[in-house]
Amino acid sequence: MPRSDPFKPAARVANQPQDVWSIINEAAAASPVQPIVNMGQGFFGYNPPQFVLNAAKEALDKVECNQYSPTKGRPRLKKAIAKAYSPFFGRELDPEKEVTITTGANEGMLSAFMGFLESGDEVIVFEPFFDQYVSNIEMPGGKVVYVPMHPPARGASETTSAGDWTVDIKAFEAAITPRTRMVVINTPHNPIGKVFSRDELLAIGNLCVEHNIIILSDEVYDKLYYVPFTRIATLSPEINRLTLTVGSGGKLFYATGWRVGWLIGQEHLIKYVSAAHTRICYSSVSPLQEATAIGFEEAEGHNFWEESKKEMKGKMDRFNAIWDELGLPYSDPEGGYFVLVNMAKVKLPEDYVFPPHVASRPRDFKLAWFLIVELGVAAIPPTEFFTPQNAHIVEDWLRFAVCKDDEILERAHERLRGLKKYIQ
Amino acid sequence: MPRSDPFKPAARVANQPQDVWSIINEAAAASPVQPIVNMGQGFFGYNPPQFVLNAAKEALDKVECNQYSPTKGRPRLKKAIAKAYSPFFGRELDPEKEVTITTGANEGMLSAFMGFLESGDEVIVFEPFFDQYVSNIEMPGGKVVYVPMHPPARGASETTSAGDWTVDIKAFEAAITPRTRMVVINTPHNPIGKVFSRDELLAIGNLCVEHNIIILSDEVYDKLYYVPFTRIATLSPEINRLTLTVGSGGKLFYATGWRVGWLIGQEHLIKYVSAAHTRICYSSVSPLQEATAIGFEEAEGHNFWEESKKEMKGKMDRFNAIWDELGLPYSDPEGGYFVLVNMAKVKLPEDYVFPPHVASRPRDFKLAWFLIVELGVAAIPPTEFFTPQNAHIVEDWLRFAVCKDDEILERAHERLRGLKKYIQ
Repeated sequence: MPRSDPFKPAARVANQPQDVWSIINEAAAASPVQPIVNMGQGFFGYNPPQFVLNAAKEALDKVECNQYSPTKGRPRLKKAIAKAYSPFFGRELDPEKEVTITTGANEGMLSAFMGFLESGDEVIVFEPFFDQYVSNIEMPGGKVVYVPMHPPARGASETTSAGDWTVDIKAFEAAITPRTRMVVINTPHNPIGKVFSRDELLAIGNLCVEHNIIILSDEVYDKLYYVPFTRIATLSPEINRLTLTVGSGGKLFYATGWRVGWLIGQEHLIKYVSAAHTRICYSSVSPLQEATAIGFEEAEGHNFWEESKKEMKGKMDRFNAIWDELGLPYSDPEGGYFVLVNMAKVKLPEDYVFPPHVASRPRDFKLAWFLIVELGVAAIPPTEFFTPQNAHIVEDWLRFAVCKDDEILERAHERLRGLKKYIQ
Repeated sequence: MPRSDPFKPAARVANQPQDVWSIINEAAAASPVQPIVNMGQGFFGYNPPQFVLNAAKEALDKVECNQYSPTKGRPRLKKAIAKAYSPFFGRELDPEKEVTITTGANEGMLSAFMGFLESGDEVIVFEPFFDQYVSNIEMPGGKVVYVPMHPPARGASETTSAGDWTVDIKAFEAAITPRTRMVVINTPHNPIGKVFSRDELLAIGNLCVEHNIIILSDEVYDKLYYVPFTRIATLSPEINRLTLTVGSGGKLFYATGWRVGWLIGQEHLIKYVSAAHTRICYSSVSPLQEATAIGFEEAEGHNFWEESKKEMKGKMDRFNAIWDELGLPYSDPEGGYFVLVNMAKVKLPEDYVFPPHVASRPRDFKLAWFLIVELGVAAIPPTEFFTPQNAHIVEDWLRFAVCKDDEILERAHERLRGLKKYIQ
């Protein structure tokens, strides 16, 4: 008897709703205002720095840089990362045992979940969350448990700090069950732009120690902080013992398409991340690992970290001037390159016709659609980063990525002035 | 109550035996004969062709080639692949629906297993097999069912064709159960060098049609065939409907560290491979996707495919002359760049001391160790590509990779002459 359902997908991929990225990208492509000013997805509108590009090109001329790298990563890159991170960790990281290279931070986080989660294990994720976390946790059969963060009370009426988004530690504690295996933290946070405070991290970390929960700390924007930045791994030996820190070459060196990421942590954690990564991707892209290593080695000589941060903060401030001009409040980022803007004051025309796949979504999707079609500016509706029951928390907000050329930011200003007549 | 086992890994990664690659690489690094002639792992000893390297360097100068690619791959690469493969498939492949790009063939195959296997589903794999298949199948909870292939009856006494390794179709049919979801085929085959005959593929394919089994055909060496090469997907519409064909830019363009692979198949299959890939790696490395696209576009202008095959066949024949000289039989490859050599006639000294992790393994590990330490030539013991109960089938064989510089092949000849005194 032949099986009747040969093309039936596995449950883990069967559910394929249209994701926010394709909804926004398709809308952007179809907008009457072209070329669109795309401040949606967080890719850079410019190239990696020349010294990193040169390193990539030189790597391409070397035979060994075009062939398989060791599954745990190229020794040169692991060494460069250990050296670069050791001062922040306050101790010498062992490049061979405490660093492992992955195919982007995304596959690195999947490797961590694959390395530790058994079916039914729970992972606590704060909302809003980077949407890939959820599928990454569910792939190995994990269950996501959500704890919402809340915008500043006056976020709809005045510009506030992204640091004023609150984490409810009691809610976090209440979410812990005997099946809680891991928690995901993200600081600087996407999309909020919040840098978690030392106190917040300590409270979370101590609860993780109390309950023996592994902490996966997504710190991919860790060179872009505009207030003091704390790494949870550094707060105590007990917390460090439970923490995996995630980094990304694509985010640091403006190359989201390079797929070079890493996890840092003690050997008892890293070895199983490496084992999972080997079974997922075998090894990661060699010439761009080499270029990333050289990027780390040469960054300080080029004063790159400092200039990179200054440049991004400059873009952020220049871009956000438009909201002050328009009188729209925003959540002033403490880190990263995303800004959340509150559009409660924007009155969409009552008779405006949205296509069904937008009309059926929360108000932020309608706002995003309207900006794309009427003004030619693309942003991301952040309800996508919440579960449906908590989506209302951010239905008046939109996320803009400022990692774009200054000329684009200027054009965004010009176009966004078109919002004036809809602001009440 | 804190959980007592926070660092306990998931079962899928808990079992971490030392793999053949690290055993051989460590032995090679410790050999008294240095530098070692490494004919073990199948990486290339030379660079990708200049026109592909140039394409990679030019891609690095383009902003959009350094940022995220679409999750299913860069349109230019999908189009180039559809165009390059259409003539072999005898129909126009739809680049948007029938091609998806993955992070190497390895992650592509994992995506296929993740896309279709539920826990307990069975996948038939012919032995010997590329060792990553097994962990890739087991990651989503699949169960591997093995069907051994057998060396030519006279393989120990005379050189025979790799095509004489036999597939027992009755054994394959007997291995099919109601839980059989997929079968993995590999042609040209690693490590055997066999190109499956049309008849063999038709027999396998028809049984898959009869039982509605998805065929995952690993054809990563598909430009390196020295006898007529058949793609199982082309044998009938019914077989095509069930077939996913796997390809690799790393293998085609001498860049195993680039991690650019693809799967080709009908939309009802490809869409779930894409969905799994998106959840595993999000997207694949952009600049090297672009370079691979240009590689396909320009290959024929450089007569690359023909020369590539001629060059590899030349290396194969030149290298294998040493076995004729030594009187050791080998399995003459019909494709790819691996050759299996039968060492039954090699008499290892009775008092030779092997380290425990080698002494405990089948004879091929001892042969490999002996060649590394005494002669300075590294090869791979193929019992690693069999289950323990069938390992005896190949315990007298070693696998050599010939994708190395001619100078290395020459040096291998010189060193392998040192085997003479051990041959009976």
